[in-house]
Amino acid sequence: MSSVTTFEINEPLDMHLHLRDGDMLKLVGPLTSNTFTGALIMPNLVPPVTTKEALLAYKDRINEACKGDTFEPYVTLFFQNNYSYEFLEDIKDDIIGIKLYPAGITTNSETGVSSMDVEVLRPTLESMSKLGIPLCVHGETNGFVMDREKEFMPIYESIASAFPDLKIIMEHITTADAVELLDKYDNLHATVTLHHLLITLDDVAGGMLQPHLFCKPIAKRPHDRSALLDAALKGHPKLMFGSDSAPHPKHKKECCGCAAGVFTSPIALQVLVELFEKYQALEKLNDFVSLNAQRIYDLKPKIKKIKLVKKDYVVPAIYEYNEDNVVPMYAGETLAWSIED
Amino acid sequence: MSSVTTFEINEPLDMHLHLRDGDMLKLVGPLTSNTFTGALIMPNLVPPVTTKEALLAYKDRINEACKGDTFEPYVTLFFQNNYSYEFLEDIKDDIIGIKLYPAGITTNSETGVSSMDVEVLRPTLESMSKLGIPLCVHGETNGFVMDREKEFMPIYESIASAFPDLKIIMEHITTADAVELLDKYDNLHATVTLHHLLITLDDVAGGMLQPHLFCKPIAKRPHDRSALLDAALKGHPKLMFGSDSAPHPKHKKECCGCAAGVFTSPIALQVLVELFEKYQALEKLNDFVSLNAQRIYDLKPKIKKIKLVKKDYVVPAIYEYNEDNVVPMYAGETLAWSIED
Repeated sequence: MSSVTTFEINEPLDMHLHLRDGDMLKLVGPLTSNTFTGALIMPNLVPPVTTKEALLAYKDRINEACKGDTFEPYVTLFFQNNYSYEFLEDIKDDIIGIKLYPAGITTNSETGVSSMDVEVLRPTLESMSKLGIPLCVHGETNGFVMDREKEFMPIYESIASAFPDLKIIMEHITTADAVELLDKYDNLHATVTLHHLLITLDDVAGGMLQPHLFCKPIAKRPHDRSALLDAALKGHPKLMFGSDSAPHPKHKKECCGCAAGVFTSPIALQVLVELFEKYQALEKLNDFVSLNAQRIYDLKPKIKKIKLVKKDYVVPAIYEYNEDNVVPMYAGETLAWSIED
Repeated sequence: MSSVTTFEINEPLDMHLHLRDGDMLKLVGPLTSNTFTGALIMPNLVPPVTTKEALLAYKDRINEACKGDTFEPYVTLFFQNNYSYEFLEDIKDDIIGIKLYPAGITTNSETGVSSMDVEVLRPTLESMSKLGIPLCVHGETNGFVMDREKEFMPIYESIASAFPDLKIIMEHITTADAVELLDKYDNLHATVTLHHLLITLDDVAGGMLQPHLFCKPIAKRPHDRSALLDAALKGHPKLMFGSDSAPHPKHKKECCGCAAGVFTSPIALQVLVELFEKYQALEKLNDFVSLNAQRIYDLKPKIKKIKLVKKDYVVPAIYEYNEDNVVPMYAGETLAWSIED
């Protein structure tokens, strides 16, 4: 087989992204918007995005940070139990979905829901179901770190069966169990990150401890990674790329008590091409990184063709803006593919 | 039951300790020797301790660093496949045992053995068995980080059955599997650290990432910790306290690619008393921290009574000496027990 030396990704979409706010937004926004045509933006700011006013203002700040690029921020609301039907009906057209966090499960999720009982969640979920608003879920219990996602599977099942018309997205799945569940309910979908296709707990803590690969959910076992990778490579129609690229300043990653999150936005497409080429699955990459999301969320993204060439790309050691900075995955390393200028 | 307010530990022994060398030795040596009467010292210096000359010189440096204290460093040799019977016979009385590391498995173990095949190891193990030299083993494969110790169990079994007269110590055990194996072979013994009685992977990576709790073998699951704790609390006769206290300078712990090791020497006895008191097992603590080791290794340690009192003790945030420093477990926190001056 002749070697591939160029590849085009059409309308790349990142369906799970943290853009933060302030200087960090100004730093990382363009690192997504210059290559992606759209991204689903997480609402876990401090305080979280829970009002229409906050939502629209945040969207404005994102557009300002990303100006000059063809880029659509698909913003989300932070799930709360007390959203009225009227509120949701009013905000419906401004959001792509609502993100549900169990309280305290990850960065800035302290005000998430304290019970995952379907009956407790019913009022809001019923409204969302009627209004056709998708539910994005951080699916982890507060059990033992390696079991948290697996333990959450019955909760996904209870919501999926109680609300068959509710579109549910299992965010950043990390286990073979979640891949398996994907096919069990029509209304279940999922995102998977770049790093969970690549690493296991061994990469985080098997040699030296690697804080820049520490994330939530934590990377799991080799057989979990294999299941995720298999699903991505075959372009599983219910699986979307969502980087969960989650910038933290360097001093919060290389310290005592470091924050969870891997920053992959600027290298995601290059590494995805390398990965899909390695497994001879390039013909499925546009499904994974765009078409599946377009179909699942019924999106009509703006045209954006990204041409990748097989040419060394040295990943910057750090990205900086004013007082803020962030260290990307593969910092200082050389990738086999570059984005053509 | 009336509350205990003082407790005496007699002849405390730390049967697995890293004292390093140079300024770090000068810093951490006294933090063990002022409370322990003896410790089994790991030989993984750079280069490792493989000759009689290096061994005796290292012992001198330890004694110099710990002078003024009642303290016996029980030094060990770094296992190599090519030790002759004559060499071992000559060095026998200077060492307490020989420490075997699979190559590259932990800090400074690059020159460890590349095969754990009994036939490959036979010449040295046969000599050790004949000469009555105990074998201390870092028992991990290079498999998935959570499975490495469990996967090593058949190797322990093969050595234990091939050399029934060889005293084998499974160092720093971390799993229920290892506790179980302990009772299966007469010639198998074990050490367990303080931190593996206290923490699981949740404490390392379940919340924020805690580099100061990152160690090898990595902390495992709750049921593993329970099995270790149960065995310690009942004073299991084949289980000894071995802190595996492993100092690294702060900048090598709070960084990108941080070193493995928890530094517990200065707080070990206080925390052990608190732990054994909590489970109403104080009457077994002297077995765990001294008597079992005396019997297993046939030691006659110098008399040293350490009196602990139930009085707040604030753990220093850092210990420093010249350019070197080290952050202890529980840095800056308050413990319930103190060592009486």
